[in-house]
Amino acid sequence: MNPLTSPLLTDLYQLTMLQAYLNSGIRQQAAFEFFVRTLPENRNFLTACGLETFLDYLEGMRFSPTELIYMKGTGRFSSDLIDYLEQFQFTGDVYAMPEGTVFFTDEPIIRVVAPICEAQLVETRLINMVQFETLIASKAARCVIAADGRASLIDFGVRRAHGAEAGLLAARASYIAGFIGTSTVLANAFYGIPIFGTMAHSFIEAHDSEEAAFIDFCLANPQNTTLLIDTYDTPNGCRKAVEVAKILAEKGIRVQRVRLDSGDILALSKEVRQILDQAGYRDIEIFVSGNMDEFIIEDLLTSGAPINGFGVGTKMDTSADAPYLECAYKLTEYADRPRMKKSSGKVSLPGRKQVFRSYEKGRMTGDVITVEGDSLAGTPLIEQVMVGGNRLAKPRTLQETAAYTRDQFNALPRDLRALRTAPAAYPVALSPSLNRLKAKIETSLDR
Amino acid sequence: MNPLTSPLLTDLYQLTMLQAYLNSGIRQQAAFEFFVRTLPENRNFLTACGLETFLDYLEGMRFSPTELIYMKGTGRFSSDLIDYLEQFQFTGDVYAMPEGTVFFTDEPIIRVVAPICEAQLVETRLINMVQFETLIASKAARCVIAADGRASLIDFGVRRAHGAEAGLLAARASYIAGFIGTSTVLANAFYGIPIFGTMAHSFIEAHDSEEAAFIDFCLANPQNTTLLIDTYDTPNGCRKAVEVAKILAEKGIRVQRVRLDSGDILALSKEVRQILDQAGYRDIEIFVSGNMDEFIIEDLLTSGAPINGFGVGTKMDTSADAPYLECAYKLTEYADRPRMKKSSGKVSLPGRKQVFRSYEKGRMTGDVITVEGDSLAGTPLIEQVMVGGNRLAKPRTLQETAAYTRDQFNALPRDLRALRTAPAAYPVALSPSLNRLKAKIETSLDR
Repeated sequence: MNPLTSPLLTDLYQLTMLQAYLNSGIRQQAAFEFFVRTLPENRNFLTACGLETFLDYLEGMRFSPTELIYMKGTGRFSSDLIDYLEQFQFTGDVYAMPEGTVFFTDEPIIRVVAPICEAQLVETRLINMVQFETLIASKAARCVIAADGRASLIDFGVRRAHGAEAGLLAARASYIAGFIGTSTVLANAFYGIPIFGTMAHSFIEAHDSEEAAFIDFCLANPQNTTLLIDTYDTPNGCRKAVEVAKILAEKGIRVQRVRLDSGDILALSKEVRQILDQAGYRDIEIFVSGNMDEFIIEDLLTSGAPINGFGVGTKMDTSADAPYLECAYKLTEYADRPRMKKSSGKVSLPGRKQVFRSYEKGRMTGDVITVEGDSLAGTPLIEQVMVGGNRLAKPRTLQETAAYTRDQFNALPRDLRALRTAPAAYPVALSPSLNRLKAKIETSLDR
Repeated sequence: MNPLTSPLLTDLYQLTMLQAYLNSGIRQQAAFEFFVRTLPENRNFLTACGLETFLDYLEGMRFSPTELIYMKGTGRFSSDLIDYLEQFQFTGDVYAMPEGTVFFTDEPIIRVVAPICEAQLVETRLINMVQFETLIASKAARCVIAADGRASLIDFGVRRAHGAEAGLLAARASYIAGFIGTSTVLANAFYGIPIFGTMAHSFIEAHDSEEAAFIDFCLANPQNTTLLIDTYDTPNGCRKAVEVAKILAEKGIRVQRVRLDSGDILALSKEVRQILDQAGYRDIEIFVSGNMDEFIIEDLLTSGAPINGFGVGTKMDTSADAPYLECAYKLTEYADRPRMKKSSGKVSLPGRKQVFRSYEKGRMTGDVITVEGDSLAGTPLIEQVMVGGNRLAKPRTLQETAAYTRDQFNALPRDLRALRTAPAAYPVALSPSLNRLKAKIETSLDR
């Protein structure tokens, strides 16, 4: 059982509900929608991500003999359920906003339409994947907007990510949002995302001197020469890097970058720039890391720190200031009848929905959530991506998705690009037809 | 390539440093230690977790043919490195505090002693696993202490956990910390952790009435009868549960629990308790979920909410108020010489270390971090767990570890059990021998 593909990475209730559905013959078509209820603090928009990861999962979703044997062994599950799962494959339709689409609260970004057993069973893993990648793409978006083309960003977060899959998916989500790459090797092997790396403090400490460490590293990695200069004293480390750059030049090796990972980065980056420039190394770039996030990136660059690139790790890969989204995957229709929940504070919108977005001079001006099938002004954001369990088209490449995402960010109203909550939220309205449907269902529930 | 076992789930620099080590013949023994630099807000202690997960990884750590072919294909890596990795297995020693041990800042909880290439290569995944499980065990510990035996706790967080492995490991870490189980089915299949589940709002909504949903569910799952009563109106839902309990009693099925997932939980739990009691169902328990954390659990129980169990999800599985630890895996010795880093604000302690803990009347009174080999008063916390790449003993069962962890929590000074930062931190001292070593290395670095 591989946790990444196992359908048993789910909540027990998905299986016990299935058992009840099978038992009572509740097998008709259902529609579920995934949406976010509220924006976390300081977020003016979110960036949809994780759809293709989820579609991959759906296409491969099977119960293996080992999984079925385990299930039988628990004594919890009926033979009807085991028989059903033995044959299980996802046969439903999926509708979604493409990855990289900017979206707002209450807007469905994924809709699953399938026999209720199937649509229900995929809930846990859908949320597990899509909330995480959306969280990270939305956090990375803030870093990209903060850097504003002035410096490159690289994901350095795999070690503090929450487990293996989080490390891998964070590389994917941040690349979609505009990072140029990651330090995570497996993300290159899996997704072809460019990888970058420097050296660790331990590497310096294992040598008798910084110079020796720098030279050893560059001789072994002549195409990949970023020198970490803060192990003992940053300006001193920089002067040693300069000496090493001279020695290596004679061997035809160019020092590309120095890295700072601690201390007063603004002051040190300026001092280091000066040392490099005065030694004639205007082409050696300055790369910084250590506790970086969108606020620090913006502050440093706005203060004129001569930084060419940032390694962004922990705070992005955990979305540290907002490590989860208030999101839900809700039944909106069963057996052709719209459904909704009325639990206090957790009302959901009934029926299959579409979102229309209006633009003026290339900037987004407002969204309307409406009943599917309505034709409103603006661009519909939700499209069908899977029919009968099969993708309608080959997924876009990550590069294409990243380009699409960049266009999305460029179309944001200026206020929404701020790192703090904008004075006014982006306008998202419910259409008259959706309001009528909501009122009708509410009335029927009050009976 | 399976991300959970692949040694390529690592930072690129681990491989490029290895290439340099091999190239320059730096192959001697190194010691690295994993520790936490600072406690997050509101944390008075941490709970070590993830060691056994990491040892499993070490025991199985191999580069597969596919991984080596990938590496060759990148053109980045020397044939010396590929040859080395083809033969790679971890041959080092590991020393650690047992899982479940309470620990504090600067105390090493894991030490890896191995040829430097091996000890360095495992860094990324060690941190990726151990920081996460420690984070979750430490968060779960707070929930357990808040509940204080007055209610049971169940992990409900897999859907908001950051990916598949996080969901699985959060179930493991919270069980070690004292949760009675999880909703994650795969955690039962992998670790034998007890699983629990209820039903979703969608299940209710897919039926024509709450009663029908309750009955369908219980008939299909007669051993697992928790009724979700808040979909439309909680007291009403509870009265329907009572009606259903009467009907089911005739069929020999007992309703075990009702679940509340929204609204004013304190008031509703009291009202629901009254409805159940008045109907003669004193044995039906009240289970609550929805945005639970240690603060809410303590508030509810202290306010007299008649709650028997909590489902704790998002906020625990993401450790929402502290989603990462300021931790590090640092070289402390190479080629028999202690090493340390002096980067501004990030000084580390040199040499192989041990921690001694003193007790009075069964309560911890203070720790001393010292040089390995010293014999001080108190109990040494770090023991050898792996020699030459092999575990010294079979791992404890999770039940044994959970019992050990409970004893650890019971030995905490009362102040440290508070959910807010205690007035005084737990005393952790450096021994004179460690202070002397530190001063000596600092002087040598200042040369």
